[in-house]
Amino acid sequence: MRAAVTLFRATLAYDGTDFEGWQIQRGRPARTIQGVVEHALSVLAAGAAVRVAAAGRTDTGVHALGQVISFDLAREIGCDALRRALNALLPRDVRALDVREAPPGFHARRAAVSKLYRYELDTGEIQLPTRRRVAGHVATSLDEGHVREAAALFVGRHDFASLASAGGSVRTTVREVMRSEVRFRPGALVYEVEANGFLRKMVRSMVGGLVAAGRGACSVAELAAALERRDRRAWPAPVPGHGLTLVRVLYRGEPESTIHG
Amino acid sequence: MRAAVTLFRATLAYDGTDFEGWQIQRGRPARTIQGVVEHALSVLAAGAAVRVAAAGRTDTGVHALGQVISFDLAREIGCDALRRALNALLPRDVRALDVREAPPGFHARRAAVSKLYRYELDTGEIQLPTRRRVAGHVATSLDEGHVREAAALFVGRHDFASLASAGGSVRTTVREVMRSEVRFRPGALVYEVEANGFLRKMVRSMVGGLVAAGRGACSVAELAAALERRDRRAWPAPVPGHGLTLVRVLYRGEPESTIHG
Repeated sequence: MRAAVTLFRATLAYDGTDFEGWQIQRGRPARTIQGVVEHALSVLAAGAAVRVAAAGRTDTGVHALGQVISFDLAREIGCDALRRALNALLPRDVRALDVREAPPGFHARRAAVSKLYRYELDTGEIQLPTRRRVAGHVATSLDEGHVREAAALFVGRHDFASLASAGGSVRTTVREVMRSEVRFRPGALVYEVEANGFLRKMVRSMVGGLVAAGRGACSVAELAAALERRDRRAWPAPVPGHGLTLVRVLYRGEPESTIHG
Repeated sequence: MRAAVTLFRATLAYDGTDFEGWQIQRGRPARTIQGVVEHALSVLAAGAAVRVAAAGRTDTGVHALGQVISFDLAREIGCDALRRALNALLPRDVRALDVREAPPGFHARRAAVSKLYRYELDTGEIQLPTRRRVAGHVATSLDEGHVREAAALFVGRHDFASLASAGGSVRTTVREVMRSEVRFRPGALVYEVEANGFLRKMVRSMVGGLVAAGRGACSVAELAAALERRDRRAWPAPVPGHGLTLVRVLYRGEPESTIHG
């Protein structure tokens, strides 16, 4: 007898340090979040393969506080029992924070209205060792006014081809950014950006642009021109992934959830 | 020709995750902070052995934002050049934040007036993966009033024999606690304790007591009696080291320095 199939949706938090990103890599062994999650679910499905869709396919070193996934599971199990069973099977650097049944046809990426990413960047001469897995680092202070002006460039509907890494296969490089904000703290800044979608390495390229403007390597007007050019060679290099966190995914009809961290 | 010997004092920050504590362990290979620091200094001393004294001999997994060390170095070198040379030689999980010449006879531990430790404890059902190297975890909420009352027990001059781990070789188990304070945040608490000295695992035993009182495993009056008993079997078990950080060391005649973090 086959168990009925249920479509679930789960919220995951993970420490990306020891993963080569979200996505399973065909043809070579790599520890990925998708890999450990699908393995745990296949154990719960009595060995049957389970495919998982994620709202954001995070890169190597990138963390999550609110990644959302969807998957079909052929097993009669309550949501809370499934969450506990998953956490018992998952390694300690991935946790299921929430599991619920999803409406028919729900797909974690296609149904997402927006995603919010956060980048933490330390700007002191020396980065504290306990920060090195969760924050990027530039050993120079940044001009706050120029960084804020550069962040404002991204708001609205733009063709972000200049900020897209090679290797992506997307139909369009146009995205809409609803929010692009920088908070400064002593020796650090926190950048938050919310958009209806992100190209590959787009947030890290955005922060690369903020750093270039903030340290005076280019002017904000030059950045604006580089964005217009729709050519990735025109744009400053992306910053490393370990300062980046997928904070939250928003779906239609849902209020903004509490943001962790 | 031998270079003149200079007595230096340095402030270190480190991520204790991948170390078996501060102290070099005779007779077995172990990665220790003392080991990597003495190795880096011996390179700068043209291969001569350099012995380092630390204000606090932190345990496995324990971090530092302001560990202070002292050492003699037979090399003509300025303080800032020494700091940069050390950081070039040290692994990324240890950083020298500051190097200065020390007054004659200075010893980082014996000259210390007080040390400030901080323990971070997550209290939600699920600990976020990015917090697991820097915070302890109990999957239960704690009674704030009882935790605060328990923390107040430690203030003043007490015989802390009940909180000392076996294996310490100290003349007296009496210590003076100047400050013992808890701050609550949603899903977490931060405990800070400053004393003229600490016994082995003393802070972790203190937090073990706070947890026991906060979850109702014992009353504050029972904790007070256990402290009086001067018997470590009377006291709750210590919490793990990875939530603990040596924040600052205070020396006579020095103002409170800026606290990192």
